[in-house]
Amino acid sequence: MPRLILVRHGQSQWNLENRFTGWWDVDLTAKGEDEARAAGALLKAKDMLPSVAFTSLQTRAIRTLHFALEAAGRLWIPETKDWRLNERHYGGLTGLDKAETAARHGDEQVKIWRRSFDTPPPVLEDGSEFDLRSDPRYAGIAIPSTESLKDTIARVLPYYDAEIAPALRAGEVVLVSAHGNSLRALVKHLSGISDAEITGLEIPTGQPIVYELDESLNALERYYLSER
Amino acid sequence: MPRLILVRHGQSQWNLENRFTGWWDVDLTAKGEDEARAAGALLKAKDMLPSVAFTSLQTRAIRTLHFALEAAGRLWIPETKDWRLNERHYGGLTGLDKAETAARHGDEQVKIWRRSFDTPPPVLEDGSEFDLRSDPRYAGIAIPSTESLKDTIARVLPYYDAEIAPALRAGEVVLVSAHGNSLRALVKHLSGISDAEITGLEIPTGQPIVYELDESLNALERYYLSER
Repeated sequence: MPRLILVRHGQSQWNLENRFTGWWDVDLTAKGEDEARAAGALLKAKDMLPSVAFTSLQTRAIRTLHFALEAAGRLWIPETKDWRLNERHYGGLTGLDKAETAARHGDEQVKIWRRSFDTPPPVLEDGSEFDLRSDPRYAGIAIPSTESLKDTIARVLPYYDAEIAPALRAGEVVLVSAHGNSLRALVKHLSGISDAEITGLEIPTGQPIVYELDESLNALERYYLSER
Repeated sequence: MPRLILVRHGQSQWNLENRFTGWWDVDLTAKGEDEARAAGALLKAKDMLPSVAFTSLQTRAIRTLHFALEAAGRLWIPETKDWRLNERHYGGLTGLDKAETAARHGDEQVKIWRRSFDTPPPVLEDGSEFDLRSDPRYAGIAIPSTESLKDTIARVLPYYDAEIAPALRAGEVVLVSAHGNSLRALVKHLSGISDAEITGLEIPTGQPIVYELDESLNALERYYLSER
């Protein structure tokens, strides 16, 4: 039966510094690299070996994939990178310290931006140091200026349908190395989680989540691989 | 104009130990990792940034690609892995120390195996510790039991025509991270080197070789990037 494994990238420098990251290309910390290797070692130990992989265009997810595949002895499987698996774009919050932002805008406002399903943060201003329009990796892509979780889902799910679901139907064991919010999009879809509840669902870094699916790709079971 | 960049993987453990490697999946040494990073730093310094990459199914070439792309800030470009870019299969010589082999079989015989264009080494015996038939990465592939350089070329060039040449024609800057003999196949083809001469052409590890091509993919120029 089809099997999908989700891994959120290991700790990044801005996870550590508690800053909003979104599409900014922050790398893993040494701890994040270790988390990624541990995820791959767990895949191997549990004989849960992927045959194809998908990741975002962001270094922290790509390197997590590579460390995990290396530890699992699967560096040779096909991998596809796509911007539609990127983290939610945090707009004008990008780069800000979360505590500072709360002090400036109030806890309630920050909570709305972080936890509302469909309210995006303020847009990233043109000319911001975090403006990605000159980044060649996004050439030809309509880079968002901000995203709600709903907006993120609206670009993740069509990609899942177009690229990931066919691989699952073809019998591949699919590994997706991505981000808190792009993975929320998949979990919401597969587990049928409501708009209100998905915003509170935390996806831990470096913990493989396994979906056992039926032939129509309905979820039969979802579990943390570490608990099996 | 189309541009093709070739990089031979950095030093592997068996390069260091002077053993025949072929398809056996030997990893990079620390020096090899440094060579790969230096290759990527050079691509960046010379503004010779690839937009798509190809590599083999062998860890030393894949990791060379990843280290180089990371150092070049290009980890996000598409990468394709294919067995047809693997090293020449060294048959029954796989795993043997080169000096020992010469002592046993004579320098002349070893020279023939290493430097003949179309004489393959003895086949790898069934049940050898280097037998790869149970390796899942080669599932569905007719794994050779030995290869001459001619045999290697006979699987590299169709892959070049089918997958790499179209990317070049589409305007991509193509990086190929591969092996001494799979790269010889490409150099022989592009530079029109004779059967007799190609076996003596040494391709150094971790040194980007650039081909400037015309629109019909004829080579206009070939140079070591370090010399520009």
